[in-house]
Amino acid sequence: MKESASIERSICAARIEQELFERVLPFWERHSPDHMHGGFYNNLDRDGSVYDTTKHVWLLARQVWMFSKLYREAETRPGWLDLARLGMVFLRQHAVQSNGQVFFSLAEDGKPIYQQRKTFTECFYVMALAEYGRACDNPAMVQEAKDAIELLWIRSYDWSTVGRPALEGSPDAQALAVPMMLLNVLDEVMADELPLCAAEVEDCIRRIRLHVDDESEVVFEHVRPDGSRLPGPMGRLLNPGHAIEAGWFLQHVAQRLGHQNMAQLAMNMVRWSYRRGWDDEHGGLFYFQDCEGYSPVQLEWSMKLWWPHCEALYAHLLNHAFSGAHADWKAFKEVEQYCFENFSDPEYGEWYGYLDREGRITHRFKGGAYKGCFHVPRALWLCLRLLNNWPVAAVHADAL
Amino acid sequence: MKESASIERSICAARIEQELFERVLPFWERHSPDHMHGGFYNNLDRDGSVYDTTKHVWLLARQVWMFSKLYREAETRPGWLDLARLGMVFLRQHAVQSNGQVFFSLAEDGKPIYQQRKTFTECFYVMALAEYGRACDNPAMVQEAKDAIELLWIRSYDWSTVGRPALEGSPDAQALAVPMMLLNVLDEVMADELPLCAAEVEDCIRRIRLHVDDESEVVFEHVRPDGSRLPGPMGRLLNPGHAIEAGWFLQHVAQRLGHQNMAQLAMNMVRWSYRRGWDDEHGGLFYFQDCEGYSPVQLEWSMKLWWPHCEALYAHLLNHAFSGAHADWKAFKEVEQYCFENFSDPEYGEWYGYLDREGRITHRFKGGAYKGCFHVPRALWLCLRLLNNWPVAAVHADAL
Repeated sequence: MKESASIERSICAARIEQELFERVLPFWERHSPDHMHGGFYNNLDRDGSVYDTTKHVWLLARQVWMFSKLYREAETRPGWLDLARLGMVFLRQHAVQSNGQVFFSLAEDGKPIYQQRKTFTECFYVMALAEYGRACDNPAMVQEAKDAIELLWIRSYDWSTVGRPALEGSPDAQALAVPMMLLNVLDEVMADELPLCAAEVEDCIRRIRLHVDDESEVVFEHVRPDGSRLPGPMGRLLNPGHAIEAGWFLQHVAQRLGHQNMAQLAMNMVRWSYRRGWDDEHGGLFYFQDCEGYSPVQLEWSMKLWWPHCEALYAHLLNHAFSGAHADWKAFKEVEQYCFENFSDPEYGEWYGYLDREGRITHRFKGGAYKGCFHVPRALWLCLRLLNNWPVAAVHADAL
Repeated sequence: MKESASIERSICAARIEQELFERVLPFWERHSPDHMHGGFYNNLDRDGSVYDTTKHVWLLARQVWMFSKLYREAETRPGWLDLARLGMVFLRQHAVQSNGQVFFSLAEDGKPIYQQRKTFTECFYVMALAEYGRACDNPAMVQEAKDAIELLWIRSYDWSTVGRPALEGSPDAQALAVPMMLLNVLDEVMADELPLCAAEVEDCIRRIRLHVDDESEVVFEHVRPDGSRLPGPMGRLLNPGHAIEAGWFLQHVAQRLGHQNMAQLAMNMVRWSYRRGWDDEHGGLFYFQDCEGYSPVQLEWSMKLWWPHCEALYAHLLNHAFSGAHADWKAFKEVEQYCFENFSDPEYGEWYGYLDREGRITHRFKGGAYKGCFHVPRALWLCLRLLNNWPVAAVHADAL
């Protein structure tokens, strides 16, 4: 029994390894670099050709992070560090403003196009900074990332500082996205110094906790700051991919800090969101749901997007690594099968990003404003790392 | 031959009349009024129950316009004027600010939730003001609407006055939406005084003209202010429903002003956009397309939305009224069949708004943030008015 599980994991690891190193990474290595202007193209068609020269900073920063990570953890290929540098130099030259804000999108030559009010662009940039700084052994850069966290915090919880007028009738809502993002930034940037930020971690956990209703086993995307339910579609919104991603972010922190209750909460968030979010009729995770069964107001609610499946892939494997439960392995395999059958493109590499409810490809491109060299390689790499270090000892930070 | 066409039109008119007066208007008359707080609920589920108490001002203003219009043109039912008043009083009390800006959304009790940078909310409010003012014989209100146009103009073409920072790399683009909207506002508010606004009309036409490429028979959603093509997905974007709507707005103005070239341009915009926008495989008009065949970046591009079909319904009938061409009648019938088979809901009334590419209902609600008592009854009423006044003399303003 144990032996056959081990063989199953090996087969799985081999498949993931091939997908990552032969089909996914080469796509970005070949097609994304812009050696003329610097940085990367992220809007790549099915075959890697550029269909839009706009450079979306979320994706540029995440690609820097990804190649820096792989350089540090998978293999010290100089080409990967060169790629990370190509992105980082461009970002520092064009994306970062003197007040610490980072543009959301840039023209091919680096001229700014758009500045978001939300602070996610800054989050991805700071994560890239820390990871690249470590990859090229530049402690000053890592310190710069650490120093940036405080401002990120202030801006994330006080959007008014970046020009959002709060009107009298607008509900006082908090989105799961913010504390889960900040928790991941803390974990990534502080790494083994995370215990130094106990108060910030505690605050993130407290805020995430408010979104989880243990009784109904639901993770709400928006709640009031006191955790009470919001009325209307906003209050009923479920975003299974987000909740699952938050689950494994939390699990990483729980393991790093040796926090057993947090580990259980993390596991539940993944399992509950998967159970509700999976489409029993056509397979795949819904993008959005309404917890009371109304039609979600988002037009794309029933589509199957690549990223929730990437998050689920790793989150279930991680659950299984700690629980040993067969149900977690089964969920992992279900997602894996859906991904390889529907998203993978053996012909040109990378994954498709957007399918309709029935699993048909609706958008042929591999990269867009929100899809780049990130979710697919991150999930594949995290899975591979876990499979190659099996069994993990619970509360063992370095394996995560 | 002529007689059978006349019979066909009568059958059609009877069907549309029944749909409008027995299935569509009663839905809104029954379910939308909020006699407690004033105004209307616009977020109504399939059966008319309220699933969100947010009041979206686009829809409130449009409903005021619609019932005022019907009161003036279809039948002087006091109930319709009462309904229009219920909406208008609420809007004047809660939506309009002292600087002329109008909130995009309000809470149930009227507290402001959100303010858009775009000026469409103001446009719909001003149209409601003019139509309601005429319906209740209040010339001061009509004058107020006329006076508001200038400010609307300035704000529409200079978004920086409402806080939008223009960054260096952002392309200098103009959207078809703006001049077509302003043209319709002019036509609606000025009515038979439209010739007094010759310069403004000329400016709208000039701007709309820039979006139409006669050679490739394409109507672009975005162009540069000089009419040259924009690069990337933005420059390649087609929005068939919009282009078709712009076509009939233009036709109304062309007829009012007796402008033959404009009438031909209007006719072409409808025919070309329909030819490109129709899904030969599954029927219905695509929401978005890329003129060079790339995947549109909008996730909902392949969905079939109610409103482009409403616009197409009337636009083809209008084309046919002036051209007498069988192809226009055929197009009208094709859209009519698609609408009645897919959008209409004989059980609860009103139309569904959102279908997937294959025509399956994806969202069960009848009203939402962008769907209210407007596109369906407007299109049905315009068609009915045209069918009941057949044959129209070309260049005959009052019939439009």
